[in-house]
Amino acid sequence: MIDAMLGSGLSRPLEGLLADVVRHINASGAPVVSIDFPTGLFCEDNRQNEPKNIIRADYTLSFQLPKLAFMFASNEQYLGSWYLIDIGLHPEAIQAATTRHFYLQASEIRNLYRPRKKFAHKGHFGHAYLMAGSYGKAGAAVLAARAALRTGVGLLTVQIPSAGYGVIQTAVPEAMCVPDEQPHFISEVADLEGYNVIGTGPGLNTHDQTARALKLLIQNTSVPMVLDADALNILADNLTWCGFLPKGSVFTPHPGEFDRLAGKSANEHDRFEKAIELAHRFQVHIVLKGAHTMVVSPDGRCFFNSTGNPGMASGGSGDVLTGMIMGWLAQNYSPLHSCLMAVYLHGRAGDLAANRKGYEGLTAGDIIEQIPKAIKTTLRY
Amino acid sequence: MIDAMLGSGLSRPLEGLLADVVRHINASGAPVVSIDFPTGLFCEDNRQNEPKNIIRADYTLSFQLPKLAFMFASNEQYLGSWYLIDIGLHPEAIQAATTRHFYLQASEIRNLYRPRKKFAHKGHFGHAYLMAGSYGKAGAAVLAARAALRTGVGLLTVQIPSAGYGVIQTAVPEAMCVPDEQPHFISEVADLEGYNVIGTGPGLNTHDQTARALKLLIQNTSVPMVLDADALNILADNLTWCGFLPKGSVFTPHPGEFDRLAGKSANEHDRFEKAIELAHRFQVHIVLKGAHTMVVSPDGRCFFNSTGNPGMASGGSGDVLTGMIMGWLAQNYSPLHSCLMAVYLHGRAGDLAANRKGYEGLTAGDIIEQIPKAIKTTLRY
Amino acid sequence: MIDAMLGSGLSRPLEGLLADVVRHINASGAPVVSIDFPTGLFCEDNRQNEPKNIIRADYTLSFQLPKLAFMFASNEQYLGSWYLIDIGLHPEAIQAATTRHFYLQASEIRNLYRPRKKFAHKGHFGHAYLMAGSYGKAGAAVLAARAALRTGVGLLTVQIPSAGYGVIQTAVPEAMCVPDEQPHFISEVADLEGYNVIGTGPGLNTHDQTARALKLLIQNTSVPMVLDADALNILADNLTWCGFLPKGSVFTPHPGEFDRLAGKSANEHDRFEKAIELAHRFQVHIVLKGAHTMVVSPDGRCFFNSTGNPGMASGGSGDVLTGMIMGWLAQNYSPLHSCLMAVYLHGRAGDLAANRKGYEGLTAGDIIEQIPKAIKTTLRY
Amino acid sequence: MIDAMLGSGLSRPLEGLLADVVRHINASGAPVVSIDFPTGLFCEDNRQNEPKNIIRADYTLSFQLPKLAFMFASNEQYLGSWYLIDIGLHPEAIQAATTRHFYLQASEIRNLYRPRKKFAHKGHFGHAYLMAGSYGKAGAAVLAARAALRTGVGLLTVQIPSAGYGVIQTAVPEAMCVPDEQPHFISEVADLEGYNVIGTGPGLNTHDQTARALKLLIQNTSVPMVLDADALNILADNLTWCGFLPKGSVFTPHPGEFDRLAGKSANEHDRFEKAIELAHRFQVHIVLKGAHTMVVSPDGRCFFNSTGNPGMASGGSGDVLTGMIMGWLAQNYSPLHSCLMAVYLHGRAGDLAANRKGYEGLTAGDIIEQIPKAIKTTLRY
Repeated sequence: MIDAMLGSGLSRPLEGLLADVVRHINASGAPVVSIDFPTGLFCEDNRQNEPKNIIRADYTLSFQLPKLAFMFASNEQYLGSWYLIDIGLHPEAIQAATTRHFYLQASEIRNLYRPRKKFAHKGHFGHAYLMAGSYGKAGAAVLAARAALRTGVGLLTVQIPSAGYGVIQTAVPEAMCVPDEQPHFISEVADLEGYNVIGTGPGLNTHDQTARALKLLIQNTSVPMVLDADALNILADNLTWCGFLPKGSVFTPHPGEFDRLAGKSANEHDRFEKAIELAHRFQVHIVLKGAHTMVVSPDGRCFFNSTGNPGMASGGSGDVLTGMIMGWLAQNYSPLHSCLMAVYLHGRAGDLAANRKGYEGLTAGDIIEQIPKAIKTTLRY
Repeated sequence: MIDAMLGSGLSRPLEGLLADVVRHINASGAPVVSIDFPTGLFCEDNRQNEPKNIIRADYTLSFQLPKLAFMFASNEQYLGSWYLIDIGLHPEAIQAATTRHFYLQASEIRNLYRPRKKFAHKGHFGHAYLMAGSYGKAGAAVLAARAALRTGVGLLTVQIPSAGYGVIQTAVPEAMCVPDEQPHFISEVADLEGYNVIGTGPGLNTHDQTARALKLLIQNTSVPMVLDADALNILADNLTWCGFLPKGSVFTPHPGEFDRLAGKSANEHDRFEKAIELAHRFQVHIVLKGAHTMVVSPDGRCFFNSTGNPGMASGGSGDVLTGMIMGWLAQNYSPLHSCLMAVYLHGRAGDLAANRKGYEGLTAGDIIEQIPKAIKTTLRY
Repeated sequence: MIDAMLGSGLSRPLEGLLADVVRHINASGAPVVSIDFPTGLFCEDNRQNEPKNIIRADYTLSFQLPKLAFMFASNEQYLGSWYLIDIGLHPEAIQAATTRHFYLQASEIRNLYRPRKKFAHKGHFGHAYLMAGSYGKAGAAVLAARAALRTGVGLLTVQIPSAGYGVIQTAVPEAMCVPDEQPHFISEVADLEGYNVIGTGPGLNTHDQTARALKLLIQNTSVPMVLDADALNILADNLTWCGFLPKGSVFTPHPGEFDRLAGKSANEHDRFEKAIELAHRFQVHIVLKGAHTMVVSPDGRCFFNSTGNPGMASGGSGDVLTGMIMGWLAQNYSPLHSCLMAVYLHGRAGDLAANRKGYEGLTAGDIIEQIPKAIKTTLRY
Repeated sequence: MIDAMLGSGLSRPLEGLLADVVRHINASGAPVVSIDFPTGLFCEDNRQNEPKNIIRADYTLSFQLPKLAFMFASNEQYLGSWYLIDIGLHPEAIQAATTRHFYLQASEIRNLYRPRKKFAHKGHFGHAYLMAGSYGKAGAAVLAARAALRTGVGLLTVQIPSAGYGVIQTAVPEAMCVPDEQPHFISEVADLEGYNVIGTGPGLNTHDQTARALKLLIQNTSVPMVLDADALNILADNLTWCGFLPKGSVFTPHPGEFDRLAGKSANEHDRFEKAIELAHRFQVHIVLKGAHTMVVSPDGRCFFNSTGNPGMASGGSGDVLTGMIMGWLAQNYSPLHSCLMAVYLHGRAGDLAANRKGYEGLTAGDIIEQIPKAIKTTLRY
C-alpha cells in the first residue's frame, strides 16, 4: 500500500477521517510504503504527537535529505527502513536552506581533508596522550591506541596502570607507554609537555585517585581533550570541573553516560535538545553515540552520521571512536572537523568490516583493521 | 558390488541363506555399494544385531534423510562413507513424519535467525559472563572468549585466575576481565548483576575452591548457564547441584565427560538413550559432542548435526563451541535454538577452515576465524 | 663448454692427459655444463679424490636420480646448480636397484599418508608432550608448539620454565601448559601418563637441573622421544643415557650438534658414515639437518630430502621441524615415516613461504603458516 | 604559466628586470610549471639566495637527475611537486660526471645484491645483537627485531630490560633474548662473543647505567655498530667515545638527534655539510633521516634516497630502519651497502604499505610486513 497522503509541515496530530484512515491502514496487515515520510509523523519533534494516528510503514522513500525525525530510534516503528531519492535539488539550494541540522555524507568529509606534504615528518602529525585502562579493562586502551595509530597520529603515548604494561607493549608496539605507579587504576598525571591532544576514558574506572588524576589533568593542560566512558562518569559527579576544560574539548557519551551528565531524558528528542544545551553551556563538542551518531558543536549545530551498522554494537567499538578523534586532533584538524571525520570514518570502517564479517561476526578489532581502507576510499586519494 | 537386498524395517538379525550371502559378500574383497542402507543393519538400534551378518559397505547411498543408525561411529564399519540422494519427498511429508530425531541442516538454521535492527545497540545483544581458565589452561578461556565475540555477543566479561590476566587482555582486547584473587584457579564468584548468560568450564580445573565457586554460581544465578569440561566433571561428583541449575541451562560434554555424569555406557546407543533421560531428569539441554554432535532438549527431541569434519578433532575445538552457544544465548535466542545454531555453525566454520587448511593443519583458532563467514553464508544475509 | 667426458664408475682420481684437460677447462673461464656429472668427480665418496683434477661446472644435468655426492655442500663447487633429467627409466627398475640411499620426493610422502576417518576424535590424533624453553628462549617453545598443532596433533601440552608461562599461553592458546616450578630453566619431570610422544630440546639450556630432568624423562617414558638442540648437547655429555632411550626415538641435530655427539668429522662424507653408525649403535633415527636434510634409520637406510631453500637458514627453523616430527608421531605414524613426512613437508612449507616472502624476508613463523598448504598440496586430498 | 627562463648554473640572486618578472609571476596566482628547475633557484646551495626573487612553482619537470637543491624541504616552496624526465642521457655519461652526490634508485640496489647459495646455513647470515628498550619503550625493540628478521639475519639476540621480557618473547618468537638484570633500563653488557653486528638505540633511555653500558659496549666490540635514538643522544653528551667506535659503524639520526651531535644547524644545507664533516671526522656512516634520507660515507660521498612517503612519518618507522641496516650488516654486506640497501628498501616497503593503507592508516608494523615484497620486487629474483 502506498502512503503518499501528506507531505511535511504538519504540526498537530492527525484527527478525524484522516486519523481513521491511518489506523485502518495500520491494522490492515498490508505492506506499507510511505512517500517522503509517513503520514501523521512530524518532521522534527514528535513528543506531542499521537502514536496511534501515525502510519507505520515498512519502507519510507524520502526526497533528497532525511528529516530530523528519521534520526531517532523511536521513529523506526513509523519509518521502517528508509531510503533517500535524489530529486535533483540543486546543491546550492540545499546549502542555502538555513538549517542547523546536517546529514553527514562522504562529500563533506572529503572537503575537510588536507593531503600530506612530501617533506612532512612525524612532528607534523602530533603527539597524542592517552590515559586509559584499569585492572580488567586494559583491552580498551589497546583498542583506542590502535585506532589512533591507524588514523595517522605521529606519536602516541599511553598511560596505563602498571598491570597492563605488558599488554599494551605486546599488542601495540608502535605506541610508547607511561606505566602508572599503581597496578590497577590510574592515579597520577604525567608530565604533559609536548602533547597536542589528550584522550581519556576508555577502560578507566572511577577510583578516587583516578578522579583526582583526571581533575589534575583538566587543570594542567591547555590542549584539546577527548573524554569518554568513566572519564565522563567522573565528570558527571563533578560538573564544576567542566569550567576548567581546555578549549576544543570533546565528550563522547553513549545515551546512558549522557544522561548521567545531563540528567535523565524522557525521550530522544529531549536528549537531543539537552545535548545542544550542554555543548553550549560547557563549550564542548558532544558526540552522542547511536545508530545516527550526533555531533553537536558549541555553537549549536548538529551533524547526524549516515554510516555505521548494528554489527558495531559490541564491546570496544566506542574505544575505537575515541582513538580516531584523538588521531585527527593530533594532526591539527579542528575539534569539530576531527569529530566529523572520526564519526563518519568509524561508521564507514564498520560498514566495510560488516561486508566481510557480517553483523554478528564483527568485533571492534575488525573496525580498526578497516580504518585505512575507510580513509582511502572516502577521501579518494 | 551393489547391495540392494533389503530396505529398512528389519528388527531381527539376518539368518540362514541371506546371512550366508552377506558373509560371502563381506569376504569377497570386492568394493560394496549399499542402496538406502546396508543389508542386515537395523535403522535405529543395533545393540541386539549380529555384526558378522551385516553388509560392510564401502559406500552407502541413502534416500532423502539419514537413519538414526548413521549417526553412530560404531556403524561406520557397515556404512562406509554415506551420501544422501534427494528422491523428491515433499518437504511437508518429511515434516509430517512424527519423529523425535532430526537431522540439522542449513535451512533449519536459517529459519531461526532474527536479523538485526538498525537502531540496535550493544545492550540488545547481551552481556555474557565466562568463568574459565586455570594455571596452564588460560588458552581455553582465550578461545571461548574469541568465539563468543565472533558470534555476536554485545559485551563479554571473563573471570580468569590472575596468572592469566595478561594473557586474556593481550589476546582478546574486546573482552573485559575480572581477575580471580587466586593466581592458579578460580576461587570466587563475582557480582553477577547485569549478565544474561553465564558460561563456565573451558580450562577450569577441579580444585576444591573452584568446585565451591561453581556451586555458588549455580545457586546465585537465574540466567541460563553453559557448562563444559571440568565444570561438568565437578557436577558429576555433585549431581545434587543439578537441581539448582537455572532454567535453560546447557551441558556440552564429550562422551568421556558424559559418562562421568551418567555412568559408563556400553555402546553409543546406550549413551544416546541416557542423554535423553538425563536431559529430561535435569531439564537441561545436552550437547553431546561427536562426529554428528547431538543436541538433546529437555522434552526428548534429538537433533543430529550434519556439519563438521575430523580436522576439528584437536585441542580447543570444544572451547570454541562453548563460546558460540554463549554468544547466541546472550543475543536472546532460546537455549534450544542457541545450541542448534552454535552446533551447526561451529561445524560449518570448521568445514570452511578445512577447505583452506586441510584436516591436519586445522587449529581451533582457524575455526574461530571462519565463524563470521559460516554465519554469513549459512544465513545468507 | 659441455663436459660429457666421463660417466660414473670412476674410483681413482684423474691423471695424465685427462687431468690436464680438466685443469685446462677449469682455467678457461668459460661457462661449463656437465652431463650426468662433472668429469673427475666420484659418484659417492670423494675423500680420496684430487680436487684440482675435477671439473668445476656451472650447471650439471644429471639423469633420473641424483648421486650421493650431490647431497654434500663440499661438492657444490664441482656441480654448480644441478638439475635432474627424466630419461624414462622404468620406476620398477629404479625400485629394483639395490640401494640404501634414497632421494625423498612427493610421491613417497603421498604413499605414507593415511586419510582421516569421519568419526575420528582428538584421542585418535594423540597427545604430545613438549618440554622446551628457558629464560631468553621461550620463543623456540612457541614455534615448536605451533608447528605440532599445524601438523595435526590431537592435544599438546608444553612444559616451560614459569617465566615463559604468559608467552606460551598468549601465543599458542590451543596448547595446554605445565609451567616448571623454576622460572628460568626446566628442572622437573611432570606426570607422563597419557602422552604418546615426547619432544624436548627447543630453547632448552644445559643447566644441571635440566640435564637431570632430561635423564629422568628418558628413564621414565616408553613412548618415542624427539630430541633436538640442547637436549642433544646434554646427551653428548652423557652418552650412556642413550641406552635408555625409548624405542623409536629421533635425534634432530645440525652438523655442529651432531659432531658433539659423534666426534668431529673431517668432512661431510665422514659425518654421513658416522650418522649411519650412530643410528645403528643407539637404534635411533637421525635427522641430520642441511640443504639436503638426511634421515637415517637404525637399519642403515638414508633418505635425502629434495625440498627446502636457503631462506630457511634462520633462527627457529629447526624448532619448527621438531614440532612437525612430534605431530606425525602423535598421530601414530612410525618414527621413520614421521621423520620423512616432517622433513619433506617442512622443506615444502619453506618453499611455499619463499615464493611469497623471498629468501631474506622468510621467518620461521612463515614456514609454520605454510604447513597446512604444504600438507594439502603434497598429499593432494 | 610555463617557467623556462633560466637553466642551471646561476650563482647570484636574480636582480633587476628578471627579478621583477619572477615576483610578478609569483604574485599572479596562476599555476606555474618550471622546466628543469625554478628560475632563480640555485642548483645546490641556496643559503645566500634571495627568497622573494625565486619562482614558486606548482610543478617542476626536471631532466634526467634531480639537483641537490631538490633534496631539501626548504626548497619545496619553490619546486612544488617535482618529476624527472628521461632525456636520453647515456648512462655512462651520467656515471662519468664527477659528483659526490648520488640519487639512489632501484638499479643501484639491484647491483649490490648477492644471491643466496643453496648450501648456505644460518651461520652464513650472521648473528645480530640488539640492545634496546626501556620501561615504556619495549615496543621499539619489537619493531627493530622484526625488521632485522624480515631482512634476512641468520640469528638475532635481543637484550632488553627484564620488564620487557614477556613482550619480546611473545611478539618475536624467532628472536632469542638476553634479559637485562634491571627491569626498567639497560644496565649491563652481555658476552659479545659470536655476534657480527651490534645495534642499539631503539627504545633506550638515557639512564646513567645505560650510558655506562653503552660505553662498555663500544669499548668491547670490534664488529660494526648501528646507533640510533637515545644511543646517539648519549654519544652527543660523550663525543670522545666516538674515537673508540668499531670500524664500519653507522649513525641513524633524525635532524634533532643530528643537531645534538653536531650542534644546531641554521638550515638544511648547513646540516648537510656538517653531516659530511662528521662522517669524516668519526669515520662513521651517517644515515640522516628525512623525506630524502641521506647516507653519508666516511669518504664524503652522499646518497639521497628516492623512495618513501609522508605516511611513514609515525612512531617506530626509524626503529624499523635500524633493524634493516643490522639485517644487511649481519649478512656481511659492507656498511655502506647495508645502509643503501636498508634505506632504499625501507622506503620501498613504506610505499608498498601506503598503496594498501594510505598515508594516515600506515603504521610501522605495516612497513615491516612489506619488507619481503620490497626486497623481492626490487631485487627481482
